[in-house]
Amino acid sequence: MIRLYDYWRSSSSYRVRIGLNLLGLAYERVQVDLGTNEQAAVENLARNPQGIVPTLEIDSHQLTQSLAILEYLDEVYAAGWLPDPALARARVRALAMAVAMEIQPVCNLRVAQEAVAASGGTHALEGWMRDHIGPGLAAVEKMLDHPQTGRFCHGNTVSLADICLLPQVYNARRWGVDMAPLPRIRAVEKAMLALDAVQAAHPDTLAP
Amino acid sequence: MIRLYDYWRSSSSYRVRIGLNLLGLAYERVQVDLGTNEQAAVENLARNPQGIVPTLEIDSHQLTQSLAILEYLDEVYAAGWLPDPALARARVRALAMAVAMEIQPVCNLRVAQEAVAASGGTHALEGWMRDHIGPGLAAVEKMLDHPQTGRFCHGNTVSLADICLLPQVYNARRWGVDMAPLPRIRAVEKAMLALDAVQAAHPDTLAP
Repeated sequence: MIRLYDYWRSSSSYRVRIGLNLLGLAYERVQVDLGTNEQAAVENLARNPQGIVPTLEIDSHQLTQSLAILEYLDEVYAAGWLPDPALARARVRALAMAVAMEIQPVCNLRVAQEAVAASGGTHALEGWMRDHIGPGLAAVEKMLDHPQTGRFCHGNTVSLADICLLPQVYNARRWGVDMAPLPRIRAVEKAMLALDAVQAAHPDTLAP
Repeated sequence: MIRLYDYWRSSSSYRVRIGLNLLGLAYERVQVDLGTNEQAAVENLARNPQGIVPTLEIDSHQLTQSLAILEYLDEVYAAGWLPDPALARARVRALAMAVAMEIQPVCNLRVAQEAVAASGGTHALEGWMRDHIGPGLAAVEKMLDHPQTGRFCHGNTVSLADICLLPQVYNARRWGVDMAPLPRIRAVEKAMLALDAVQAAHPDTLAP
Protein backbone atom coordinates (compact mmCIF):
# COMPACT_ATOMS: atom_id res chain seq x y z
CA MET A 1 0.00 0.00 0.00
CA ILE A 2 1.51 3.29 -1.13
CA ARG A 3 0.03 6.57 0.09
CA LEU A 4 1.03 10.02 -1.14
CA TYR A 5 0.27 13.07 0.98
CA ASP A 6 0.33 15.92 -1.51
CA TYR A 7 -1.35 19.07 -2.78
CA TRP A 8 -2.63 19.39 -6.33
CA ARG A 9 -0.75 22.60 -7.11
CA SER A 10 2.52 21.88 -5.26
CA SER A 11 5.25 21.38 -7.82
CA SER A 12 7.28 19.05 -5.61
CA SER A 13 4.12 16.91 -5.21
CA TYR A 14 3.66 16.97 -8.99
CA ARG A 15 7.22 15.58 -9.38
CA VAL A 16 6.46 12.59 -7.17
CA ARG A 17 3.11 11.91 -8.90
CA ILE A 18 4.93 11.85 -12.25
CA GLY A 19 7.44 9.37 -10.84
CA LEU A 20 4.81 7.05 -9.36
CA ASN A 21 2.74 7.15 -12.55
CA LEU A 22 5.74 6.48 -14.80
CA LEU A 23 6.46 3.37 -12.72
CA GLY A 24 2.82 2.30 -12.93
CA LEU A 25 2.56 2.06 -9.15
CA ALA A 26 -0.90 2.20 -7.59
CA TYR A 27 -1.18 4.71 -4.75
CA GLU A 28 -3.75 6.48 -2.66
CA ARG A 29 -3.64 10.28 -2.70
CA VAL A 30 -4.39 12.18 0.50
CA GLN A 31 -4.62 15.90 -0.02
CA VAL A 32 -2.95 18.24 2.48
CA ASP A 33 -4.68 21.53 1.74
CA LEU A 34 -2.03 24.26 1.56
CA GLY A 35 -4.88 26.73 1.01
CA THR A 36 -6.09 26.21 4.58
CA ASN A 37 -2.62 25.72 6.08
CA GLU A 38 -3.16 22.01 6.71
CA GLN A 39 0.58 21.46 6.19
CA ALA A 40 1.22 23.06 9.59
CA ALA A 41 -1.32 20.84 11.40
CA VAL A 42 -0.12 18.33 14.00
CA GLU A 43 -1.02 15.39 11.75
CA ASN A 44 1.17 16.63 8.93
CA LEU A 45 4.05 17.64 11.21
CA ALA A 46 4.05 14.09 12.63
CA ARG A 47 4.74 12.65 9.19
CA ASN A 48 6.72 15.59 7.81
CA PRO A 49 8.64 17.60 10.46
CA GLN A 50 9.28 20.37 7.94
CA GLY A 51 5.54 20.94 7.64
CA ILE A 52 5.47 20.65 3.88
CA VAL A 53 4.35 18.26 1.17
CA PRO A 54 4.89 15.69 -0.26
CA THR A 55 5.28 12.74 2.08
CA LEU A 56 5.30 9.23 0.63
CA GLU A 57 4.24 6.25 2.75
CA ILE A 58 5.93 3.23 1.24
CA ASP A 59 7.57 0.05 2.53
CA SER A 60 6.31 0.90 6.06
CA HIS A 61 8.21 4.19 6.07
CA GLN A 62 7.33 7.84 5.56
CA LEU A 63 9.71 9.49 3.11
CA THR A 64 10.04 13.24 2.66
CA GLN A 65 11.76 15.59 0.21
CA SER A 66 10.66 15.00 -3.37
CA LEU A 67 14.13 14.41 -4.84
CA ALA A 68 15.08 11.98 -2.08
CA ILE A 69 11.79 10.17 -2.78
CA LEU A 70 12.49 10.03 -6.53
CA GLU A 71 16.05 8.74 -5.95
CA TYR A 72 14.55 6.04 -3.70
CA LEU A 73 11.98 5.02 -6.33
CA ASP A 74 14.70 5.02 -8.99
CA GLU A 75 16.89 2.71 -6.90
CA VAL A 76 14.20 0.31 -5.71
CA TYR A 77 12.22 0.05 -8.96
CA ALA A 78 15.19 0.48 -11.37
CA ALA A 79 13.38 3.36 -13.05
CA GLY A 80 16.32 4.44 -15.17
CA TRP A 81 15.94 8.12 -14.32
CA LEU A 82 19.69 8.41 -13.63
CA PRO A 83 21.68 7.35 -16.71
CA ASP A 84 25.16 5.83 -16.90
CA PRO A 85 27.97 6.73 -16.46
CA ALA A 86 28.56 8.82 -13.34
CA LEU A 87 29.23 11.96 -15.41
CA ALA A 88 25.80 11.63 -17.04
CA ARG A 89 24.20 11.25 -13.64
CA ALA A 90 26.03 14.38 -12.48
CA ARG A 91 24.62 16.29 -15.47
CA VAL A 92 21.06 15.05 -14.83
CA ARG A 93 21.24 15.80 -11.13
CA ALA A 94 22.65 19.29 -11.82
CA LEU A 95 19.74 20.01 -14.17
CA ALA A 96 17.22 18.69 -11.64
CA MET A 97 18.77 20.78 -8.89
CA ALA A 98 19.02 23.90 -11.05
CA VAL A 99 15.23 23.77 -10.84
CA ALA A 100 14.68 22.22 -7.43
CA MET A 101 17.27 24.28 -5.52
CA GLU A 102 17.60 27.54 -7.44
CA ILE A 103 14.07 28.26 -8.67
CA GLN A 104 11.42 26.37 -6.73
CA PRO A 105 12.43 27.21 -3.12
CA VAL A 106 12.53 30.95 -3.84
CA CYS A 107 9.18 30.77 -5.63
CA ASN A 108 7.61 28.66 -2.95
CA LEU A 109 4.32 30.46 -2.32
CA ARG A 110 5.10 31.02 1.36
CA VAL A 111 8.49 32.64 0.69
CA ALA A 112 7.16 34.71 -2.20
CA GLN A 113 4.23 35.94 -0.12
CA GLU A 114 6.59 36.92 2.70
CA ALA A 115 8.76 38.95 0.32
CA VAL A 116 5.67 40.64 -1.12
CA ALA A 117 4.22 41.33 2.33
CA ALA A 118 7.57 42.81 3.42
CA SER A 119 7.45 45.15 0.45
CA GLY A 120 4.18 46.68 1.66
CA GLY A 121 2.62 46.16 -1.74
CA THR A 122 5.35 47.69 -3.92
CA HIS A 123 6.32 44.20 -5.10
CA ALA A 124 3.56 42.15 -6.66
CA LEU A 125 3.48 38.38 -6.38
CA GLU A 126 3.56 38.01 -10.17
CA GLY A 127 6.68 40.21 -10.31
CA TRP A 128 8.56 38.19 -7.70
CA MET A 129 7.66 34.95 -9.49
CA ARG A 130 8.63 36.19 -12.95
CA ASP A 131 11.87 37.79 -11.68
CA HIS A 132 13.01 34.43 -10.31
CA ILE A 133 11.45 31.83 -12.58
CA GLY A 134 12.44 33.62 -15.82
CA PRO A 135 16.21 33.90 -15.22
CA GLY A 136 16.24 30.49 -13.54
CA LEU A 137 14.75 28.81 -16.58
CA ALA A 138 17.01 30.84 -18.90
CA ALA A 139 20.00 29.24 -17.14
CA VAL A 140 18.45 25.78 -17.56
CA GLU A 141 17.90 26.57 -21.26
CA LYS A 142 21.64 27.30 -21.56
CA MET A 143 22.49 24.04 -19.75
CA LEU A 144 20.34 22.23 -22.32
CA ASP A 145 22.49 23.65 -25.14
CA HIS A 146 24.55 20.48 -24.88
CA PRO A 147 25.27 17.49 -27.16
CA GLN A 148 23.59 15.06 -24.76
CA THR A 149 20.24 16.83 -24.82
CA GLY A 150 17.79 14.79 -26.85
CA ARG A 151 14.03 14.61 -26.97
CA PHE A 152 14.28 14.88 -23.19
CA CYS A 153 16.83 16.75 -21.04
CA HIS A 154 19.31 13.90 -21.34
CA GLY A 155 18.92 11.68 -24.40
CA ASN A 156 15.60 10.24 -25.45
CA THR A 157 14.26 8.83 -22.21
CA VAL A 158 12.80 10.49 -19.14
CA SER A 159 15.29 11.37 -16.39
CA LEU A 160 15.14 13.05 -13.00
CA ALA A 161 15.79 16.34 -14.81
CA ASP A 162 12.57 16.13 -16.86
CA ILE A 163 10.55 15.14 -13.80
CA CYS A 164 11.72 18.33 -12.05
CA LEU A 165 11.52 20.61 -15.08
CA LEU A 166 7.92 19.99 -16.15
CA PRO A 167 6.28 21.14 -12.89
CA GLN A 168 8.43 24.29 -12.97
CA VAL A 169 7.24 25.03 -16.51
CA TYR A 170 3.65 24.64 -15.28
CA ASN A 171 4.39 27.27 -12.65
CA ALA A 172 6.14 29.51 -15.17
CA ARG A 173 3.03 29.51 -17.36
CA ARG A 174 0.81 30.08 -14.35
CA TRP A 175 2.71 33.27 -13.50
CA GLY A 176 2.98 34.52 -17.06
CA VAL A 177 6.69 33.94 -17.67
CA ASP A 178 7.54 34.50 -21.35
CA MET A 179 8.37 31.03 -22.67
CA ALA A 180 9.25 32.22 -26.20
CA PRO A 181 13.03 32.47 -25.54
CA LEU A 182 13.10 28.91 -24.10
CA PRO A 183 12.67 26.56 -27.10
CA ARG A 184 14.62 23.62 -25.63
CA ILE A 185 12.55 23.71 -22.46
CA ARG A 186 9.35 23.91 -24.51
CA ALA A 187 10.45 20.84 -26.48
CA VAL A 188 10.96 18.87 -23.26
CA GLU A 189 7.58 20.09 -21.97
CA LYS A 190 5.92 18.82 -25.15
CA ALA A 191 7.67 15.43 -24.96
CA MET A 192 6.68 15.03 -21.31
CA LEU A 193 3.05 16.07 -21.79
CA ALA A 194 2.74 13.49 -24.57
CA LEU A 195 3.06 10.73 -21.96
CA ASP A 196 -0.18 9.44 -20.40
CA ALA A 197 1.56 8.87 -17.06
CA VAL A 198 2.56 12.52 -16.96
CA GLN A 199 -0.86 13.78 -18.02
CA ALA A 200 -2.47 11.82 -15.18
CA ALA A 201 -0.21 13.64 -12.69
CA HIS A 202 -1.07 17.12 -14.00
CA PRO A 203 -2.41 19.59 -11.41
CA ASP A 204 -5.31 20.68 -13.63
CA THR A 205 -6.70 17.15 -13.68
CA LEU A 206 -6.67 17.14 -9.86
CA ALA A 207 -7.93 20.63 -9.11
CA PRO A 208 -10.73 20.52 -6.52
CA MET B 1 44.15 17.96 -11.99
CA ILE B 2 41.10 19.03 -10.00
CA ARG B 3 40.12 22.70 -9.85
CA LEU B 4 37.40 24.16 -7.64
CA TYR B 5 35.88 27.54 -8.49
CA ASP B 6 34.42 28.70 -5.22
CA TYR B 7 33.97 31.54 -2.75
CA TRP B 8 35.21 31.33 0.82
CA ARG B 9 31.88 32.24 2.41
CA SER B 10 29.53 30.38 0.06
CA SER B 11 28.00 27.49 1.96
CA SER B 12 27.57 25.32 -1.16
CA SER B 13 31.30 25.83 -1.88
CA TYR B 14 32.06 24.87 1.72
CA ARG B 15 30.15 21.59 1.18
CA VAL B 16 32.30 20.65 -1.80
CA ARG B 17 35.55 21.59 -0.01
CA ILE B 18 34.56 19.30 2.87
CA GLY B 19 33.93 16.48 0.40
CA LEU B 20 37.22 16.91 -1.46
CA ASN B 21 39.17 17.15 1.79
CA LEU B 22 37.50 14.08 3.32
CA LEU B 23 38.57 12.13 0.23
CA GLY B 24 42.10 13.50 0.51
CA LEU B 25 41.98 14.77 -3.08
CA ALA B 26 44.44 17.51 -4.07
CA TYR B 27 42.80 20.45 -5.84
CA GLU B 28 43.47 24.00 -6.86
CA ARG B 29 41.08 26.64 -5.53
CA VAL B 30 40.15 29.54 -7.78
CA GLN B 31 38.13 32.19 -5.99
CA VAL B 32 35.10 33.70 -7.75
CA ASP B 33 34.54 36.86 -5.72
CA LEU B 34 30.84 37.16 -4.93
CA GLY B 35 31.67 40.47 -3.24
CA THR B 36 32.49 42.05 -6.61
CA ASN B 37 29.87 40.12 -8.59
CA GLU B 38 32.46 37.97 -10.39
CA GLN B 39 29.94 35.15 -10.53
CA ALA B 40 28.04 37.07 -13.24
CA ALA B 41 31.17 37.63 -15.38
CA VAL B 42 31.42 35.98 -18.79
CA GLU B 43 34.21 33.65 -17.60
CA ASN B 44 32.07 32.25 -14.80
CA LEU B 45 28.93 32.01 -16.92
CA ALA B 46 30.90 29.95 -19.45
CA ARG B 47 31.65 27.32 -16.82
CA ASN B 48 28.47 27.77 -14.78
CA PRO B 49 25.43 28.93 -16.79
CA GLN B 50 23.54 29.68 -13.59
CA GLY B 51 26.18 32.27 -12.66
CA ILE B 52 26.86 30.81 -9.24
CA VAL B 53 29.51 28.85 -7.38
CA PRO B 54 30.83 26.20 -6.98
CA THR B 55 32.02 24.64 -10.23
CA LEU B 56 34.31 21.61 -10.08
CA GLU B 57 36.68 20.83 -12.94
CA ILE B 58 37.36 17.12 -12.77
CA ASP B 59 37.85 14.27 -15.27
CA SER B 60 37.89 16.87 -18.10
CA HIS B 61 34.41 18.08 -17.21
CA GLN B 62 32.96 21.05 -15.39
CA LEU B 63 30.38 19.96 -12.84
CA THR B 64 27.90 22.31 -11.18
CA GLN B 65 25.43 22.11 -8.29
CA SER B 66 27.09 21.13 -5.03
CA LEU B 67 24.88 18.12 -4.27
CA ALA B 68 25.29 16.72 -7.79
CA ILE B 69 29.07 17.17 -7.36
CA LEU B 70 29.03 15.38 -4.00
CA GLU B 71 26.95 12.50 -5.40
CA TYR B 72 29.50 12.22 -8.24
CA LEU B 73 32.44 12.15 -5.82
CA ASP B 74 30.64 9.60 -3.68
CA GLU B 75 30.07 7.32 -6.67
CA VAL B 76 33.50 7.63 -8.28
CA TYR B 77 35.58 7.54 -5.09
CA ALA B 78 33.29 5.24 -3.05
CA ALA B 79 33.16 7.82 -0.31
CA GLY B 80 30.46 6.09 1.71
CA TRP B 81 28.42 9.24 2.20
CA LEU B 82 25.22 7.43 1.20
CA PRO B 83 24.67 4.40 3.46
CA ASP B 84 22.88 1.14 2.72
CA PRO B 85 20.08 0.21 2.28
CA ALA B 86 17.96 2.43 0.00
CA LEU B 87 15.78 3.56 2.93
CA ALA B 88 18.88 4.84 4.75
CA ARG B 89 19.95 6.72 1.64
CA ALA B 90 16.48 8.25 1.42
CA ARG B 91 16.81 9.45 5.00
CA VAL B 92 20.27 10.93 4.43
CA ARG B 93 19.21 12.64 1.20
CA ALA B 94 16.07 14.04 2.88
CA LEU B 95 18.20 15.53 5.66
CA ALA B 96 20.68 16.97 3.16
CA MET B 97 17.86 18.47 1.12
CA ALA B 98 16.03 19.81 4.16
CA VAL B 99 19.06 22.10 4.38
CA ALA B 100 20.03 22.49 0.73
CA MET B 101 16.51 23.04 -0.65
CA GLU B 102 14.51 24.53 2.20
CA ILE B 103 16.98 26.78 4.01
CA GLN B 104 19.99 27.70 1.89
CA PRO B 105 18.24 28.91 -1.30
CA VAL B 106 15.99 31.30 0.61
CA CYS B 107 18.96 32.59 2.63
CA ASN B 108 21.15 32.93 -0.41
CA LEU B 109 22.56 36.44 0.01
CA ARG B 110 21.17 37.62 -3.34
CA VAL B 111 17.61 36.49 -2.56
CA ALA B 112 17.75 37.81 1.00
CA GLN B 113 19.05 41.17 -0.17
CA GLU B 114 16.25 41.41 -2.74
CA ALA B 115 13.63 40.73 -0.11
CA VAL B 116 15.20 43.32 2.19
CA ALA B 117 15.48 45.89 -0.61
CA ALA B 118 11.84 45.27 -1.54
CA SER B 119 10.85 46.03 2.04
CA GLY B 120 12.35 49.52 1.83
CA GLY B 121 14.29 48.95 5.02
CA THR B 122 11.48 47.63 7.22
CA HIS B 123 12.97 44.13 7.01
CA ALA B 124 16.59 43.80 8.12
CA LEU B 125 18.91 41.24 6.59
CA GLU B 126 19.52 39.64 9.98
CA GLY B 127 15.77 39.30 10.50
CA TRP B 128 15.20 37.58 7.15
CA MET B 129 18.08 35.20 7.82
CA ARG B 130 16.98 34.32 11.34
CA ASP B 131 13.30 33.93 10.33
CA HIS B 132 14.29 31.31 7.77
CA ILE B 133 17.36 29.59 9.19
CA GLY B 134 15.89 29.19 12.69
CA PRO B 135 12.68 27.31 11.79
CA GLY B 136 14.52 25.40 9.05
CA LEU B 137 17.08 24.05 11.50
CA ALA B 138 14.36 23.37 14.08
CA ALA B 139 12.76 21.00 11.52
CA VAL B 140 16.12 19.30 10.94
CA GLU B 141 16.52 18.94 14.72
CA LYS B 142 13.17 17.10 14.79
CA MET B 143 14.27 14.87 11.90
CA LEU B 144 17.37 13.98 13.94
CA ASP B 145 15.14 12.73 16.79
CA HIS B 146 15.43 9.29 15.22
CA PRO B 147 16.96 5.93 16.24
CA GLN B 148 19.45 6.02 13.38
CA THR B 149 21.02 9.31 14.44
CA GLY B 150 24.43 8.63 15.94
CA ARG B 151 27.51 10.72 16.43
CA PHE B 152 26.69 12.08 12.99
CA CYS B 153 23.28 12.61 11.31
CA HIS B 154 23.12 8.95 10.32
CA GLY B 155 25.13 6.54 12.43
CA ASN B 156 28.73 7.16 13.34
CA THR B 157 30.26 8.06 9.99
CA VAL B 158 30.03 11.20 7.88
CA SER B 159 27.21 11.27 5.33
CA LEU B 160 25.91 13.72 2.76
CA ALA B 161 23.62 15.07 5.48
CA ASP B 162 26.51 16.17 7.71
CA ILE B 163 28.33 17.73 4.77
CA CYS B 164 25.27 19.91 4.08
CA LEU B 165 24.40 20.62 7.70
CA LEU B 166 27.74 21.99 8.93
CA PRO B 167 27.93 24.94 6.48
CA GLN B 168 24.35 25.87 7.37
CA VAL B 169 25.25 25.91 11.05
CA TYR B 170 28.17 28.21 10.21
CA ASN B 171 25.67 30.58 8.56
CA ALA B 172 23.25 30.26 11.46
CA ARG B 173 25.95 31.40 13.88
CA ARG B 174 27.00 34.19 11.54
CA TRP B 175 23.46 35.62 11.60
CA GLY B 176 22.92 35.13 15.30
CA VAL B 177 20.44 32.26 15.24
CA ASP B 178 19.86 30.89 18.75
CA MET B 179 21.48 27.43 18.69
CA ALA B 180 20.50 26.56 22.28
CA PRO B 181 17.29 24.66 21.31
CA LEU B 182 19.22 22.57 18.76
CA PRO B 183 21.34 20.11 20.80
CA ARG B 184 21.41 17.32 18.18
CA ILE B 185 22.61 19.71 15.52
CA ARG B 186 25.27 21.10 17.87
CA ALA B 187 26.49 17.56 18.55
CA VAL B 188 26.89 16.94 14.80
CA GLU B 189 28.65 20.29 14.43
CA LYS B 190 31.11 19.30 17.14
CA ALA B 191 31.77 15.87 15.61
CA MET B 192 32.34 17.43 12.19
CA LEU B 193 34.63 20.21 13.43
CA ALA B 194 36.79 17.61 15.19
CA LEU B 195 37.89 16.31 11.77
CA ASP B 196 41.03 17.88 10.27
CA ALA B 197 39.59 17.57 6.75
CA VAL B 198 36.58 19.60 7.78
CA GLN B 199 38.64 22.22 9.61
CA ALA B 200 40.74 22.78 6.47
CA ALA B 201 37.57 23.56 4.51
CA HIS B 202 36.29 26.13 7.02
CA PRO B 203 35.53 29.59 5.61
CA ASP B 204 37.41 31.37 8.40
CA THR B 205 40.67 29.68 7.41
CA LEU B 206 40.18 30.95 3.84
CA ALA B 207 38.97 34.49 4.48
CA PRO B 208 40.91 37.00 2.36
